[in-house]
Amino acid sequence: MGSHSDQGSSAATPGNLPEVQCGREEQELFEDLLRRPGIRIERIVSHGQTTPVDQPYVQDWDEWVLILAGSAELTLEGLGQKGLVTGEHLLIPAGVPHLVTYTADPTIWLAIHIGEP
Amino acid sequence: MGSHSDQGSSAATPGNLPEVQCGREEQELFEDLLRRPGIRIERIVSHGQTTPVDQPYVQDWDEWVLILAGSAELTLEGLGQKGLVTGEHLLIPAGVPHLVTYTADPTIWLAIHIGEP
Repeated sequence: MGSHSDQGSSAATPGNLPEVQCGREEQELFEDLLRRPGIRIERIVSHGQTTPVDQPYVQDWDEWVLILAGSAELTLEGLGQKGLVTGEHLLIPAGVPHLVTYTADPTIWLAIHIGEP
Repeated sequence: MGSHSDQGSSAATPGNLPEVQCGREEQELFEDLLRRPGIRIERIVSHGQTTPVDQPYVQDWDEWVLILAGSAELTLEGLGQKGLVTGEHLLIPAGVPHLVTYTADPTIWLAIHIGEP
């Protein structure tokens, strides 16, 4: 998965990650929770969004994702299809093109980007 | 928080993190979900355990924790007391002595160790 967030760290302030705020139900939300050299912890809120089939995500670093609420399905090139429900996690290895083929509305992801430049 | 786990990575296999397995309700459980240079993702299951007041945790790296189930209270030296319920997260900065003063039974933590040697 990619990211469209340039927000800074606000990890010193606890917030409830699985809670969805009202009023932004249409667009996918990307929020950085913590940034350190070589690691970024991101919260993503999806509302049914999927990846266009002709525009798979691919990145040069490992990404570990955990579903905090909702459910999702991904297709990883060469690794097959993966369904994830709340509480399940998956490593998306660096260099593996992948598509999010389904997200429940809402789905809340925790994404750990490891070794991102 | 410290760790007493030497288990390897098993992140390629999804598992449901908030689920508690029966039969191990007494001892605190530490399980590595992913290890990479400079980062370790750990799942911890507490059953009411707390830190002895005279033996605070202190470590040379940042630790970010998220409560996946249950609730906990921590005291961080110089930063005060923090209560965390399911879905809340906290950065424990490197070098800050801290105590876990309460955990519900069960409490499931996700702990991200950043820059651990």
